[in-house]
Amino acid sequence: MSDTPTMNGAESLVHTLIDSGVDVCFTNPGTSEMHFVAALDHIPGMRSVLALQEGVATGAADGYWRMKGKPASTLLHLGPGLANGLSNLHNAKKAGSGVVNIIGEHAASHIELDAPLMSDIEGIARPVSHWVHTSKSAATVGEDAARAVQAAQVAPGQIVSLILPSDTAWNEGGVRHDPLPVPEPEVFAINLLADAAQALLGPESLLLLGGAALTEDNLHIAGQIAAKTGCKLQSEWANARMERGAGRVIVGRVPYPIDIALKVLAPFKRIVLVGARPPIGFFAYPGKPAVLTAPDAEIVPLAPAGTDLTSALEALCVATEAKETAPAHVAKADLPDRPEGPITLDSLATLIGRAIPENGIVVDESVTTGRAFFPATQGAPAHTWLNNCGGSIGYGLPAAIGAAVACPDRKVMALTGDGSAMYTVQALWSMAREDLDITVLIFANRSYQILRGELTNVGVQNPGPRAIDMLSLDRPALNWVEMSHSMGVSASRVTTCTELEDALADGLESTGPRLIEVAL
Amino acid sequence: MSDTPTMNGAESLVHTLIDSGVDVCFTNPGTSEMHFVAALDHIPGMRSVLALQEGVATGAADGYWRMKGKPASTLLHLGPGLANGLSNLHNAKKAGSGVVNIIGEHAASHIELDAPLMSDIEGIARPVSHWVHTSKSAATVGEDAARAVQAAQVAPGQIVSLILPSDTAWNEGGVRHDPLPVPEPEVFAINLLADAAQALLGPESLLLLGGAALTEDNLHIAGQIAAKTGCKLQSEWANARMERGAGRVIVGRVPYPIDIALKVLAPFKRIVLVGARPPIGFFAYPGKPAVLTAPDAEIVPLAPAGTDLTSALEALCVATEAKETAPAHVAKADLPDRPEGPITLDSLATLIGRAIPENGIVVDESVTTGRAFFPATQGAPAHTWLNNCGGSIGYGLPAAIGAAVACPDRKVMALTGDGSAMYTVQALWSMAREDLDITVLIFANRSYQILRGELTNVGVQNPGPRAIDMLSLDRPALNWVEMSHSMGVSASRVTTCTELEDALADGLESTGPRLIEVAL
Repeated sequence: MSDTPTMNGAESLVHTLIDSGVDVCFTNPGTSEMHFVAALDHIPGMRSVLALQEGVATGAADGYWRMKGKPASTLLHLGPGLANGLSNLHNAKKAGSGVVNIIGEHAASHIELDAPLMSDIEGIARPVSHWVHTSKSAATVGEDAARAVQAAQVAPGQIVSLILPSDTAWNEGGVRHDPLPVPEPEVFAINLLADAAQALLGPESLLLLGGAALTEDNLHIAGQIAAKTGCKLQSEWANARMERGAGRVIVGRVPYPIDIALKVLAPFKRIVLVGARPPIGFFAYPGKPAVLTAPDAEIVPLAPAGTDLTSALEALCVATEAKETAPAHVAKADLPDRPEGPITLDSLATLIGRAIPENGIVVDESVTTGRAFFPATQGAPAHTWLNNCGGSIGYGLPAAIGAAVACPDRKVMALTGDGSAMYTVQALWSMAREDLDITVLIFANRSYQILRGELTNVGVQNPGPRAIDMLSLDRPALNWVEMSHSMGVSASRVTTCTELEDALADGLESTGPRLIEVAL
Repeated sequence: MSDTPTMNGAESLVHTLIDSGVDVCFTNPGTSEMHFVAALDHIPGMRSVLALQEGVATGAADGYWRMKGKPASTLLHLGPGLANGLSNLHNAKKAGSGVVNIIGEHAASHIELDAPLMSDIEGIARPVSHWVHTSKSAATVGEDAARAVQAAQVAPGQIVSLILPSDTAWNEGGVRHDPLPVPEPEVFAINLLADAAQALLGPESLLLLGGAALTEDNLHIAGQIAAKTGCKLQSEWANARMERGAGRVIVGRVPYPIDIALKVLAPFKRIVLVGARPPIGFFAYPGKPAVLTAPDAEIVPLAPAGTDLTSALEALCVATEAKETAPAHVAKADLPDRPEGPITLDSLATLIGRAIPENGIVVDESVTTGRAFFPATQGAPAHTWLNNCGGSIGYGLPAAIGAAVACPDRKVMALTGDGSAMYTVQALWSMAREDLDITVLIFANRSYQILRGELTNVGVQNPGPRAIDMLSLDRPALNWVEMSHSMGVSASRVTTCTELEDALADGLESTGPRLIEVAL
């Protein structure tokens, strides 16, 4: 522990975060965070990215973790600032991302006065956090910060919320704390290994993958196991991060629409889980099952999230005697033919498949529009694909910011529905401010299209005008080109395949942010 | 209790809300709310206003209550939808507004499966709610709704959160419930009446008003008391609603900047509170007091928020023998002279004072820009003024929506800083969609200007470039005209007094939304 007696609490916090490897801060600060801001001002080493609404900051921290494998910090203004970032923290939590939230609080003496901005910050934080702590004094802030960073790195990744009363920030007596070790992941269920290996024999068997099982190396092992045993491979519907494209093992996703998901999973009698949970419906529907697997399917939970998935797959590979087997389902470099004419969901998928650059990062919040994207992109150059894991819309643009900050040498493509994009549209400004290399595709169907289907799914067969109106974004139509320009991001609207192809080429060849409104 | 046996839970909810006087719903629904949407579709009587982010919906409900005096409902999608609306519920709670949140939840059978959108909704709701309840079955939803509306109307107004698992919405057996009586406000502290009357004698005495003490009639009484006793009148810094303008009693606000507030309050030896709380600093600052009144000031808490403030003022009027006295401080119709040249904070205030129309509603989130607005507008035609009471920015544009929906025959002026407006900028779209009669003024100082001052207040005298950068919105500059156009609201940018005057005249003469970017 290196002791610097002239430090205030905020300075000990910034030093400790940087020492612990947390060197990015997505923020919208306020008065109670001014000492943290002042500390950032004179302590080098922390990149601060300003967001115009905290949902952008927390979503960016999610995307950053997924691509960097270490946490960013957020700096949030009291309970309301945290509240604005809450839904993207929900998404990050469900994705298994590690995030270190630093939340300002009133000075202890002020809390009892119930000032206008006073709220129950711990209460707001708890539903989305694995770890919540309020610093007690300037002297403990450094240690609190080190513990927070450690807690964020508990596998697969955790949301931590460190609340900093402003007197603990401004008082002298801060102590810089040494980094604490990164926690080891738990061991997988070794006792289930033999059962799992046995269960995978034959085409009625499924190896269902999630989380860190979807790295390039782990997919390779899964492909070997599939080749040896004849089992099928699938991933969960939403994956925090999946490596894909030419040369990598192809893994399809369990579909979102419940009827299709039930059909896809019906044949499987034995399912082994590595990093995945038993498949369930995104929602409950009257008269339909919630559990998507066949009622008599045997499920072997070999390696839950938070355990060492690489070791689990390696052990499974040994147990199935697949170590020397070449992997099955390896994607060939294969660009689909160039489509022409007006943009359809299929031609859109094809054009995206043709556009993904080598080593690109695709942030996918395309909702209904994107259901054909996976097959059409599996032969694209090697790339990384991120899904929304918590189902709260507005994750895509912020996560793209985090991915671009984490990987400045990789092109990011953000694919998002118009309804989703509006939730955190302020993200465009931060993209421009930081000159991030992101090409944004807005799928402008001017509707919460997914809800049209869901209305039917819950049994409403003939929605009337008032219901339709609540699911429609066409009155007035959003003009995404003006929206984008207003925040400093160049943009165009495309209506044909050729226009989209040209705009994609333009966006991918340039650096910096670019938005394409795709008329659907 | 009128029993309609063929109803589902959602239908019983909609019927009961409407029967109880809740006939507006600010919403962004999702799958778990589809039965509520379906019920709205075929049950007439509920106006549904779609918001593209839930912060708009909850802020609109706040503005609606303030102007209508009865609650609107919100319809929010699960925990994340509630979370997005949380910060404006915080503001509504601090304003004493009544809001009925209807929050969808997974079907009971689905909750235990921990689906992606599963979260602790009660936990998220509790920090901003006075009343939280999860419906247990379709049969109880109607009664739950009636109780929720009643709870929202506990004086001065309460945030209630009714959580509706989707099976309680879709199951048959819903029972429409009769409205429950509106609760009476509590009695004020009658035992303090004589002390209060005595305390108000002389110029070192202050009658500090808040909440419902700021209606036209109650201000008249306060003016009589001031005339008789010689006491001064002030209101809290932030007021949910104040009636102002020509013919009404002028009440200044306790200033926001702590040093000025301390100076203004220092002379008062005796302070009587009616609907106000003892004045405290918005934030704590190192080495400065949190309580703003003189250390030896006697404070008489005659009528806390939630008590019958009208009766308190009437009784105080009798006790001070002011019943026959003409009120002091009545504002004369007095338009300040027409300024010319570039726009300054003073000329801006003057132009707003000259523009406020008879019976207009001013929604004020002007932060630093607006500190001169109060004196410059006190002689404008009679109007209503709403402040942000919770300090979480992004309240203004949504609250303007609620005010305009509540009072379709009154012009709304929304005065907002650019930083604040960006927080809930999606509100512009709802204004266009509903063709609401709102003139929006964006004060584009391209900075979190208030934080520049706060940085100094917490002791940082010479902020460096990294700190300044975190408080600046000028890289890139936001183009509010394009932003507004992108969401269907006509707009212009003004840089001189004449341009602003013309744009204001244009906005106020037309109906429908109009945005003016005021370059500062």
